[in-house]
Amino acid sequence: MLIVMNSQASEENINKVVDFIKQKGFDAHVSKGEDHTVIGAVGRKVIDKRDIELLDGVKEVIRITSPYKLVSRVFKGEDTIIEIKDVKIGGNNIAMIAGPCTVESYDQMDATAEKLSECGVKLLRGGAFKPRTSPYAFQGLGEEGLKILREVANKYNMLVTSEVMEVSQIPMFLKYVDILQVGARNMQNFNLLKSLGEIRKPVLLKRGLSATIEELLMSAEYIMAGGNREIILCERGIRTFEHMTRNTLDISAIPVIQKISHLPIIVDPSHATGLRDKVAPMSKAAIAAGADGLIIEVHNSPETALCDGAQSLYPHDFAILFDELKQLAKVIKKHF
Amino acid sequence: MLIVMNSQASEENINKVVDFIKQKGFDAHVSKGEDHTVIGAVGRKVIDKRDIELLDGVKEVIRITSPYKLVSRVFKGEDTIIEIKDVKIGGNNIAMIAGPCTVESYDQMDATAEKLSECGVKLLRGGAFKPRTSPYAFQGLGEEGLKILREVANKYNMLVTSEVMEVSQIPMFLKYVDILQVGARNMQNFNLLKSLGEIRKPVLLKRGLSATIEELLMSAEYIMAGGNREIILCERGIRTFEHMTRNTLDISAIPVIQKISHLPIIVDPSHATGLRDKVAPMSKAAIAAGADGLIIEVHNSPETALCDGAQSLYPHDFAILFDELKQLAKVIKKHF
Amino acid sequence: MLIVMNSQASEENINKVVDFIKQKGFDAHVSKGEDHTVIGAVGRKVIDKRDIELLDGVKEVIRITSPYKLVSRVFKGEDTIIEIKDVKIGGNNIAMIAGPCTVESYDQMDATAEKLSECGVKLLRGGAFKPRTSPYAFQGLGEEGLKILREVANKYNMLVTSEVMEVSQIPMFLKYVDILQVGARNMQNFNLLKSLGEIRKPVLLKRGLSATIEELLMSAEYIMAGGNREIILCERGIRTFEHMTRNTLDISAIPVIQKISHLPIIVDPSHATGLRDKVAPMSKAAIAAGADGLIIEVHNSPETALCDGAQSLYPHDFAILFDELKQLAKVIKKHF
Amino acid sequence: MLIVMNSQASEENINKVVDFIKQKGFDAHVSKGEDHTVIGAVGRKVIDKRDIELLDGVKEVIRITSPYKLVSRVFKGEDTIIEIKDVKIGGNNIAMIAGPCTVESYDQMDATAEKLSECGVKLLRGGAFKPRTSPYAFQGLGEEGLKILREVANKYNMLVTSEVMEVSQIPMFLKYVDILQVGARNMQNFNLLKSLGEIRKPVLLKRGLSATIEELLMSAEYIMAGGNREIILCERGIRTFEHMTRNTLDISAIPVIQKISHLPIIVDPSHATGLRDKVAPMSKAAIAAGADGLIIEVHNSPETALCDGAQSLYPHDFAILFDELKQLAKVIKKHF
Repeated sequence: MLIVMNSQASEENINKVVDFIKQKGFDAHVSKGEDHTVIGAVGRKVIDKRDIELLDGVKEVIRITSPYKLVSRVFKGEDTIIEIKDVKIGGNNIAMIAGPCTVESYDQMDATAEKLSECGVKLLRGGAFKPRTSPYAFQGLGEEGLKILREVANKYNMLVTSEVMEVSQIPMFLKYVDILQVGARNMQNFNLLKSLGEIRKPVLLKRGLSATIEELLMSAEYIMAGGNREIILCERGIRTFEHMTRNTLDISAIPVIQKISHLPIIVDPSHATGLRDKVAPMSKAAIAAGADGLIIEVHNSPETALCDGAQSLYPHDFAILFDELKQLAKVIKKHF
Repeated sequence: MLIVMNSQASEENINKVVDFIKQKGFDAHVSKGEDHTVIGAVGRKVIDKRDIELLDGVKEVIRITSPYKLVSRVFKGEDTIIEIKDVKIGGNNIAMIAGPCTVESYDQMDATAEKLSECGVKLLRGGAFKPRTSPYAFQGLGEEGLKILREVANKYNMLVTSEVMEVSQIPMFLKYVDILQVGARNMQNFNLLKSLGEIRKPVLLKRGLSATIEELLMSAEYIMAGGNREIILCERGIRTFEHMTRNTLDISAIPVIQKISHLPIIVDPSHATGLRDKVAPMSKAAIAAGADGLIIEVHNSPETALCDGAQSLYPHDFAILFDELKQLAKVIKKHF
Repeated sequence: MLIVMNSQASEENINKVVDFIKQKGFDAHVSKGEDHTVIGAVGRKVIDKRDIELLDGVKEVIRITSPYKLVSRVFKGEDTIIEIKDVKIGGNNIAMIAGPCTVESYDQMDATAEKLSECGVKLLRGGAFKPRTSPYAFQGLGEEGLKILREVANKYNMLVTSEVMEVSQIPMFLKYVDILQVGARNMQNFNLLKSLGEIRKPVLLKRGLSATIEELLMSAEYIMAGGNREIILCERGIRTFEHMTRNTLDISAIPVIQKISHLPIIVDPSHATGLRDKVAPMSKAAIAAGADGLIIEVHNSPETALCDGAQSLYPHDFAILFDELKQLAKVIKKHF
Repeated sequence: MLIVMNSQASEENINKVVDFIKQKGFDAHVSKGEDHTVIGAVGRKVIDKRDIELLDGVKEVIRITSPYKLVSRVFKGEDTIIEIKDVKIGGNNIAMIAGPCTVESYDQMDATAEKLSECGVKLLRGGAFKPRTSPYAFQGLGEEGLKILREVANKYNMLVTSEVMEVSQIPMFLKYVDILQVGARNMQNFNLLKSLGEIRKPVLLKRGLSATIEELLMSAEYIMAGGNREIILCERGIRTFEHMTRNTLDISAIPVIQKISHLPIIVDPSHATGLRDKVAPMSKAAIAAGADGLIIEVHNSPETALCDGAQSLYPHDFAILFDELKQLAKVIKKHF
């Protein structure tokens, strides 16, 4: 931590700061510049930097160690590659996760999975617990939905992911799914993150609607600190002043994260845009920018879907898109 | 719901839309204008408007009924006034809630509450369960903290509020606190909101970091739909591009909410700004703009606080501020 | 325009609204629904919708005609393709505009243009007038810079674009450049837009830092209203709370604009990200999403550049990138 | 400037950075910490910090001197108080600037100014050049409008302010107005700022729609660098995701700016909210937070105003508001 003093700070001001940080368990190195005295505070303690900023004569306090460690490239130079059976995610391996917003019935899942499987998709998604803004809307099938998901996946030799909402649901999810998904609204549900750190299955962690990239990485750190090293990050759009799309998909998060973290980063174009006709161009953009995967909503009959039909692709359109995506991937030397 | 067709929409397009909405359970009224045909869809069903927007020839779909009802001024014209013992919140009664970020010990709470009580504060705050970004930071005293809070409050004849994190904690909170607080990160934790709708104690609901005012009202609707009509809304800053303050306190949310909802709206200047010296001016701004209350962090010894000391007021400074706030309130014909 | 009345609006309220809009020159069509009366206001007049919103009993006023006309797909169904000599921009023709931030000298431009020309670039960029945040920084060569730009372009048989800052500069620019560029800060300089509507050379219009897509289109409408139909729109990043990149490049603006407007939309990845190593991934994303072109900063010696060297590509890296972009374009059936 | 190296940076990396900054004209002080080597770069040169960030082994480059100097409290400790005849702005003197959006006619200005003058308002506002989003809307009376403004002001012994749009208009404005206003869209029109630095009349500088506080101060620095020390800053709302108000008025900008700058900061509640009924609460909030003034739209007949009638106060309502504001000011020990 570096403490920059005002150009007008007195000797006394400087001494008080030095005393303060020593008392908090840090070593202090004072270096006087032409304009500013800079105090380096060295130590491993946690401190709220605002406590120092409020001391007299302090201009600015600068944290120079990242708040996250385990998730950073400094800690681990090479890409994390997550392997589940014959599927790899990360490095040059792009993951395609597809399926409906919600598990509605065995037939719906079976029809959708069959189509997806024919295209070569190996990762199936589907929600079982749906928190909805209206208390009267369809709330998901619950555990029954997870069972259907598993059954259908087994039939087509696929892996499954579904969103876990609460700590108490984790054991149930472990029985049925291969990847546990944390939704955007739960990105900073630290109890949930801590519990997911203790399991040994991959976690798909979505960026919150107004979370910075640093905050996303800190949430991932929470999981890794518990010992679970298999985390897939997911960009799904941030809230901005532009309202022609539901959210603004932050494609630049892909290269930014890939530079500072070793974890795979995938993209959810369905929730980010909220409209079917924007899913294809944004999927292509994500792959071209180097994303490690996509999670796309596909429904066998979007017009009768109980949830998010408007942003779900028809299986036929998905097949065409997937084909184009494979060609794009080849250009940038990656593959699905 | 109004469906505006493109100026170039064909008869066939129009008929398809009419058929679609009838099939979804709505009545349709077609009205042809000079440029645009407008179709009014009348009915009580829930429908995803994007499903209609994707039909050919549709320019725009406009929802004309608010998504919230019980919380609106249309539903209830006069201000909701929440009464707990001799304390009133709402109407011309401004509430002052004060106390430390976290309950650290009996002595700390006792020392702080004594000072606050001397100033005439009747509502005491203090966190018992603290979700922290770092797993190594102080996580709160848990139920022990709630007990201390209750004991100290009883000693000084005060009421207490504390943040509840999970559905499972509700029964415990009901034993100790007078107002259950929902934090910004839980504003859309619909399971929690639903459960709080079933209790009969007031709920203090904070606006999410990037939540719109409409979303805040929809979350309040969730609680009211369950039968709990005692909700206090709380503005606590939104995330913007400006970073000289932690968040941007949206003072205009006060008059906006007071126009469209009957619920009281209070302001949290401590979390919004994150720095002690900004708490006073923003508290004054909130009261002058007509806020129904404030929730302010005060600590008997901020420099040794385990959490958020940098944004906590000294009891002495709080006393001066409270005095000024009372004078400001008088000018706008309200009172603490 | 549709005026939705409150469910509690009286007959008198409705009549007053009808009188008001008639007096403003509109026809009124009243249609009574179950909950709400809706008044359709038909006419060609300009009216500030807030004037109606303030009348008693009015719930909401909804504009149903777009504020822009000439730039919309409704006005012109097929893509606008801008032709300058042998270069086409729009439709399936992707434009590559490259060059340094600023024209520094003949030698610098000559060295850079030579490299670009070898790669097949036909459109050269370079600033002559540089508004800088510091009054002591390099302010550009002025007209001398435009002369160099023209001379070098002629040598390599290229076309040129440069940013015009003020109405008074337009005649000078017409002498030297093929495309006049309007910077993000001038997107709503209406005097400048009006004057550019009167010329007959293409205009490259950049989206403002916090401009909505609708505002960008309205600015383009300003130019088209003057009779100049050759406008190239440019997405260059918007301001959000994320600060790991200078701005957030809104890639979804590409498909959004292509659906509602016939004008070509290109992307500036250099200014959006502000860092060299993010330019390649974001360029690829833009092309994959269907952008009609790119404008990229390339400098023959970035480390000695007088301006924005940090976001300028080396000619060698640009050549590799351009090659990849051509392959990506092929996949989505477009070409440079 | 401090350059923080990665924990894994090599000796060679460090030496290259030292060479680089020396070559750019800085002195280098290397200080090796436990985790990180920090290099202090001391000197007066201007350098793009991204150029250093791109060097191998560099983790972060931190600017420790503010980009602005003359406008800062460090440069001048006491409040700047601007005096024009018998009017003072700054310190404990709150300024009230009021008047219509646009000068429409002599009679309109006379009627409005008469009412304002009766309330004790000494500063009259009115636009003469109106850049409008629609080319068909009223564009202002031009110089004729300035003449009317001056004439009416003289009749009632008032001072006037009006918005200057271009460098070429400055001499004309100097003939008629007492304070030259720079609009939000021109906050970074550096040519205009530079020219305003050369005059000797006060400038009212509005914060851009998406400008940070730091950028606002840098624009003020531009004017001060030219020698004009009389600048009034103005907060007028920033663009956020909330759309129930036109913009989000950033009230916290008041105490933030007052801490770091000596210049007066006033607030424009009319443009920020865009609706008449929000002007009063936000004006009160601004004064209570310590603003040095307000600029409010008042029109003798808002319903027939050619521009922004919806956000203009009736003279009668203004009189009541002004009275309340005076009482609020007294509470915080300031006065109009």
